[in-house]
Amino acid sequence: MRLSRYFLPVLKENPAEAQIVSHRYMLRAGMIKQESAGIYAWLPLGYKVLARLEKIVHEEQQRAGHIPLLMPTLQSADLWRESGRYDDYGAEMLRIKDRHERDMLYGPTNEEMITDIFRTYVRSYKDLPLTLYHIQWKFRDELRPRFGVMRGREFLMKDGYNFDLTKEDALHAYNRHMVTYLRTFERMGLTAIPMRADSGPIGGDDTHEFLVLANTGESEVFYDEAVTDLKLGDRKVNFDNRDEVAEICREFTTLYARTDETHDAALFDQIPEERRKVGRGIEVGQIFYFGTKYSEPMGATVQTAEGTQVPVEMGSHGIGVSRLIGALIEANHDDKGIIWPEGVTPFHVGIVNLKQGDAEADAACENIHDSLIALGLDPLYDDRDERAGGKFATMDLIGLPWRITVGPRGLKNGVVELTSRRTGVSEEMTPADAIARIAAIYANI
Amino acid sequence: MRLSRYFLPVLKENPAEAQIVSHRYMLRAGMIKQESAGIYAWLPLGYKVLARLEKIVHEEQQRAGHIPLLMPTLQSADLWRESGRYDDYGAEMLRIKDRHERDMLYGPTNEEMITDIFRTYVRSYKDLPLTLYHIQWKFRDELRPRFGVMRGREFLMKDGYNFDLTKEDALHAYNRHMVTYLRTFERMGLTAIPMRADSGPIGGDDTHEFLVLANTGESEVFYDEAVTDLKLGDRKVNFDNRDEVAEICREFTTLYARTDETHDAALFDQIPEERRKVGRGIEVGQIFYFGTKYSEPMGATVQTAEGTQVPVEMGSHGIGVSRLIGALIEANHDDKGIIWPEGVTPFHVGIVNLKQGDAEADAACENIHDSLIALGLDPLYDDRDERAGGKFATMDLIGLPWRITVGPRGLKNGVVELTSRRTGVSEEMTPADAIARIAAIYANI
Repeated sequence: MRLSRYFLPVLKENPAEAQIVSHRYMLRAGMIKQESAGIYAWLPLGYKVLARLEKIVHEEQQRAGHIPLLMPTLQSADLWRESGRYDDYGAEMLRIKDRHERDMLYGPTNEEMITDIFRTYVRSYKDLPLTLYHIQWKFRDELRPRFGVMRGREFLMKDGYNFDLTKEDALHAYNRHMVTYLRTFERMGLTAIPMRADSGPIGGDDTHEFLVLANTGESEVFYDEAVTDLKLGDRKVNFDNRDEVAEICREFTTLYARTDETHDAALFDQIPEERRKVGRGIEVGQIFYFGTKYSEPMGATVQTAEGTQVPVEMGSHGIGVSRLIGALIEANHDDKGIIWPEGVTPFHVGIVNLKQGDAEADAACENIHDSLIALGLDPLYDDRDERAGGKFATMDLIGLPWRITVGPRGLKNGVVELTSRRTGVSEEMTPADAIARIAAIYANI
Repeated sequence: MRLSRYFLPVLKENPAEAQIVSHRYMLRAGMIKQESAGIYAWLPLGYKVLARLEKIVHEEQQRAGHIPLLMPTLQSADLWRESGRYDDYGAEMLRIKDRHERDMLYGPTNEEMITDIFRTYVRSYKDLPLTLYHIQWKFRDELRPRFGVMRGREFLMKDGYNFDLTKEDALHAYNRHMVTYLRTFERMGLTAIPMRADSGPIGGDDTHEFLVLANTGESEVFYDEAVTDLKLGDRKVNFDNRDEVAEICREFTTLYARTDETHDAALFDQIPEERRKVGRGIEVGQIFYFGTKYSEPMGATVQTAEGTQVPVEMGSHGIGVSRLIGALIEANHDDKGIIWPEGVTPFHVGIVNLKQGDAEADAACENIHDSLIALGLDPLYDDRDERAGGKFATMDLIGLPWRITVGPRGLKNGVVELTSRRTGVSEEMTPADAIARIAAIYANI
């Protein structure tokens, strides 16, 4: 993409309304524009990151055999009356009347609707196990929306629901989700720690939250520092193998890591003192096992092999896709701007032309740009007639992890400069080597 | 995908509420479930088709240099008061009050919001031309929603907006959109004819609708039969070349083709009688040039090279993504079910095992399934323990364009059967040849 043809409205000034760094940088980098309190338009750069996150979430869910569908944003109030949550949910539920005065609502979550879909079609234990999920916009009418997309009102969430015959099967689904989430967040370049949590309005016995460590996090967290060294990496997981999946969960949940809701000071004190950490975390995902909490009142039963009818065992599992972008920036930035992890960066590499209009520099940039595209990569070429300083500032702000700088002086020696946004380290090399290096960096991402 | 692990709730009975064939088959094939009047959940098979359509729309828009972003579903009423449409729009606009009693609405379209985004950031003619688009859920509170996703209330639309300095530039954007739409619909396997139309509530002078011929269409259409032979094919288009783009538009809009709104009987009568056709059409897209209708009242101006301020020239361009699925089925079905064009089919090929549990048949099916996936294809393997007749009926109903049938008798002779859903013609060949044939069919799609 040539920047002269793109829409990247970066701001020089710090917006007064932004209290935290992710909100500030998202506004300044032209990623979002507030449309109403807690409701944002995703400008092209922001939308690109959102789409990358969605793709990772889809891939990791489907790798575990979970099946995508798409439920609507608006729901009938009747379903929520069946579960009893219509009255419980309070003012955060956006209640709507249509032209026929029917009670509707903008879905804040989908337990009721998915349970209704299940009971409409599934009759037999033979159709289990089943996990359905979607990525859809939700609405929670927060009293005081703030922190940009971190606590917005209209937000994008992945929510998945498992349906199983037995509690044991449902706990396998729970574990399967934990492993998919570990890989999802790792691919995004995040250290997200599963912590035992409180179930809140979803209900249920077992629940873990995934928290990204960041000073601006809303939750106080207590953890054994060794937990931050755990990595799933690219180990191959057989999601049908219960023991294998359970063993990974044990590996990631044995070391102490809890939010203030479930913190146990006595247990915490058993950690060697040098590894005992107190910090703050941003919640980016949560998994729940809640058994028959919805299936029983809503009559979602299946016939067992013995011919009896039993309510199906369920859980639900969410990832805050839009909020993740805030968390990513909170965990990856410096005082010049965002530093995207390679797995989620909107463009793979920036190309800065130090002397726009210089025939040789222009040709070298065009060639690098087109070669990268031919390799399936997505470069952003700053081809504007601007000073080099302004171009560098824009690249630093929008946070592309790699930058190729092209100027007449370097080209005389046959070289361009490849710079890492994270380390700031630059290396000179031929254009062909720079292209090859970028291709190698993204080959496994 | 193995059907035993998928969620495909096909119905044997014809649902009473479905008046047209696309609605009937979408319900029967387990593609959608009605959640409220005119509001549908997209079950896995339906969601897959929707995702394929979205991908084609994105690719063709971006090929022409149009830039994706994502605006929210809910909008503030204030923007619509500025353009004067808040009061004009009537009962089809879903009006909402949030917890602070602020007037909101569920966007039925986005001219106001995109104009506001533009005026917030763009100041100079140097930033033009610019075309922004998104694919987002919309809501129109239809008095009588019907025909399934063809006239739903919550629907998925691609809407794009061009911003240009002069009328001439804006008409080039209009033409560019026409060409992208021609390719988009062709890739979906549709013959969608651009017809001069009425502008309706969007406003403007120039507008074309794209209509798919189908007996159940809501519009009466009058056309020269020769128009249905026009094909864009895979010719390479330089979207910056105005004459080239305009010439393609002339090619596709010179032959007579109009809806009843703009029909001219005298012109129609000049067509040679044997090519004069009257039929019905389903609207799947519309493009508008409307100049300064929104930019003027909303103050979206740019500075010209001469230093004066002028309101920006605009147009808007929509594709009814969810409704397209209805149109696709209306145009591609028989009495057994849907017949998907290869460009949009949810799975590329079905694999039917005639004797589940037969070691050789099972192994052959598994091998074909895995080989197709290794080639980047997406097969659906019916591995259920069902009679062959039931498996064939399901495959015919869900409409995969190709089927590989595997049975012990054929395998004795080293062959499987490859069947075209559209022609019904079957051929025997080795499993390896069947795989190669499927790969060749999808190589250019």
